[in-house]
Amino acid sequence: MTIKAYVYDAYGTLFDVHSVAEKAESLYKGKGKEISEQWRKKQLEYFMLHQLTGNYKPFSEVTKNALLYTLKNLSLSCNEDDLHDLMNAYLELNVYEEVRETLQTLKNKSKKQTIYSNGTYEMLKPLVEKRELDHLLDVLSVDDVKQYKPSPIAYKYALETLGVDRNEVLFMSSNFWDITGAASFGFRTAWINRAGLEVDELGIKPDYIFHDLSEIVTV
Amino acid sequence: MTIKAYVYDAYGTLFDVHSVAEKAESLYKGKGKEISEQWRKKQLEYFMLHQLTGNYKPFSEVTKNALLYTLKNLSLSCNEDDLHDLMNAYLELNVYEEVRETLQTLKNKSKKQTIYSNGTYEMLKPLVEKRELDHLLDVLSVDDVKQYKPSPIAYKYALETLGVDRNEVLFMSSNFWDITGAASFGFRTAWINRAGLEVDELGIKPDYIFHDLSEIVTV
Repeated sequence: MTIKAYVYDAYGTLFDVHSVAEKAESLYKGKGKEISEQWRKKQLEYFMLHQLTGNYKPFSEVTKNALLYTLKNLSLSCNEDDLHDLMNAYLELNVYEEVRETLQTLKNKSKKQTIYSNGTYEMLKPLVEKRELDHLLDVLSVDDVKQYKPSPIAYKYALETLGVDRNEVLFMSSNFWDITGAASFGFRTAWINRAGLEVDELGIKPDYIFHDLSEIVTV
Repeated sequence: MTIKAYVYDAYGTLFDVHSVAEKAESLYKGKGKEISEQWRKKQLEYFMLHQLTGNYKPFSEVTKNALLYTLKNLSLSCNEDDLHDLMNAYLELNVYEEVRETLQTLKNKSKKQTIYSNGTYEMLKPLVEKRELDHLLDVLSVDDVKQYKPSPIAYKYALETLGVDRNEVLFMSSNFWDITGAASFGFRTAWINRAGLEVDELGIKPDYIFHDLSEIVTV
């Protein structure tokens, strides 16, 4: 079956969310890594809880609330300028090193490529432009339907927007929860297992497991 | 407003899930605490993902799968007997020390008391009997509707079963995600903050925050 649409998760998959550790370290000496890790953990927990309880809040707000909790939890004070700087770090995340070349290779083969993310357009567009990927792929956000991945409604929206059949989509994510939702919905999936984790026991097997994104050109 | 129903979460609230560390330690020397912590973390992650993706699996299966992942992740081998022993430890969790007296006090005041848990009846009933709480409260499981807390559908089922108004329910949990769902649904809530955590930034304030369960008799 030919792949007609290459669809990419953003955070953790194309962009390194832990790039924020550098800014956090500059503000809170010796705490950068811990802040970054707790911040991400809470961000994931919070959007999933909003989805589970049926109270959607945009990812920008979720991300800010996760940061506020993290600083409170670590007994770190924070003024408006620091908060602004830390949130701005999310608009300048590093892109993983193999990403641009991989996207370019598929672009050269005239493949349709799209980011599909829980982030808002206000978070994603500056990031994609900053990292000079905007000529390589489109950007689509769950904020259009206000239902977070891994809810089936979220993947359905992407499918309808792409206008292809669901088994013509190859969905890439480094987040196993995202692979679980996408595979369960019927997308073909490639888990970009950057952290070298074990496959979760959720009754889902990704079609492909790769160490980084470059291997998708072999599919 | 009079409280007509006292509703308790089970795991972490009445029963200490980390009691399993002792059995784990006896099987995997020096690893008991780590196994217990990862096991619980994965158990929470897994049932939430099943709920989010619309693929309900009973909590007994989720709990077993979380254990299997944990052992795999820690590179620990496991035979059927060990697995059986570890799963059985879930049927013999310790009850927190103030629980029985608190329930008895409310029972003496003829208050209606119910456990409402994500666990299955096969997990909850032996536990409640083992810890001699069965004469103090009823047991209700989300397995009847196959929708996990903190989904609103799960709390709705409890409400209908109890036959009271939603603001006549006082819902107790040590899990903030459960308090979030219950409060969002309209129950009155008491967060039993055993671990002394900060309030999560989810736009929800519990009606009461207590250090242990005994304080609920003052409400």
